[in-house]
Amino acid sequence: MIAMATAVVCLCLALSQAGGSHIPVEMNRTIHSLLRYYKSVTKLPDRSRFTGKLLFSREPPSRQTEAKLVYMGGILETYDKLIGQMLKQLPTSGPQTAGASRAPPADANGAGAHGDVRTELRYVLKKIQELKKHRYEEQEKLLNGLQALRHIQTDNVAVQNKALWELPWLYEEASSLSNNTREDRRRRRRRRRQAQRVKTHLSGGNANVKRKGF
Amino acid sequence: MIAMATAVVCLCLALSQAGGSHIPVEMNRTIHSLLRYYKSVTKLPDRSRFTGKLLFSREPPSRQTEAKLVYMGGILETYDKLIGQMLKQLPTSGPQTAGASRAPPADANGAGAHGDVRTELRYVLKKIQELKKHRYEEQEKLLNGLQALRHIQTDNVAVQNKALWELPWLYEEASSLSNNTREDRRRRRRRRRQAQRVKTHLSGGNANVKRKGF
Repeated sequence: MIAMATAVVCLCLALSQAGGSHIPVEMNRTIHSLLRYYKSVTKLPDRSRFTGKLLFSREPPSRQTEAKLVYMGGILETYDKLIGQMLKQLPTSGPQTAGASRAPPADANGAGAHGDVRTELRYVLKKIQELKKHRYEEQEKLLNGLQALRHIQTDNVAVQNKALWELPWLYEEASSLSNNTREDRRRRRRRRRQAQRVKTHLSGGNANVKRKGF
Repeated sequence: MIAMATAVVCLCLALSQAGGSHIPVEMNRTIHSLLRYYKSVTKLPDRSRFTGKLLFSREPPSRQTEAKLVYMGGILETYDKLIGQMLKQLPTSGPQTAGASRAPPADANGAGAHGDVRTELRYVLKKIQELKKHRYEEQEKLLNGLQALRHIQTDNVAVQNKALWELPWLYEEASSLSNNTREDRRRRRRRRRQAQRVKTHLSGGNANVKRKGF
């Protein structure tokens, strides 16, 4: 069964490599090593992983690019939290993974922790945090803003009073924003159609010029 | 002090009306009535409302339109929850607001509850839910997706194992999505510049035609 699971993981990793992957080889290898460690330690049956339902849906909730980016930012945030939790749950003795005999990940900085689980988890966490920081900065700001909204004490009377007082401006803003966005989209579509007409007109003109032998 | 607070509220409502408001007059009046009720019942001093810091920032966390819409969707969601909570906290006897003597909101459906707090809160809640449903549907889907991410049990070993297994595909997807978006933006900018050049070229041509007296 272990051999089968390893084969599935290898196939998965190979497929992700074949598809013009953006995942660094070292990261791929580290995840592989961690998977083998967690499998051997937790003794979880394969069916607990292959339930047919993915933890993170591969269909984002919206087809709009910006929405997809925000959702992906949310997934990266979840991984950040999840790996942080995995690090917290590690025994203090510093367990070894199957990759213990090989060199540590190129940019890991856990001194004297060759191939150990902590170093490998820190390495994966660092890669995720780098991707978040350099490519999902805007989305992170928004996610933090949404997070702050969730901390509003909706059962507090003073908060309710304040919220009621702010409602007229916010309701108006929400209506205007949605109206303006619709109008902007219409304007963009109109501009695209105009540009298309100009292009057709120009290429038509050039064709006439060519036909007349100029 | 009551007179001053009322004047401030009236000014706020008047300003929101003057600025080409999208807030219905009846909603404005209902919020006003509720504010007076909560002020008289809770006996909260004005300073608890006017602390100089707003509950909902008027500066969204991102300047991108889509991000603004998502944030506004989050604010509407918070109001939905907050007013739901206010309804739950109401005493069962059905308190009366200052608007008890006037007709109920046009589309309120609380039978026999003329001007009472419950009816007024239900009316405001309905207006918010309608705005969410008709104008923020896409954003709501995304917010629900993000909500589901927060429910992932990051301290569960089986979940951690599964997440680790899904990571290569997701990391690759997150990198590609961000790359493609950057490339799309560059392409759009290029297309805009081309369209601008064509426009300038055409208007230049027309000017020549005019100069030549055609």
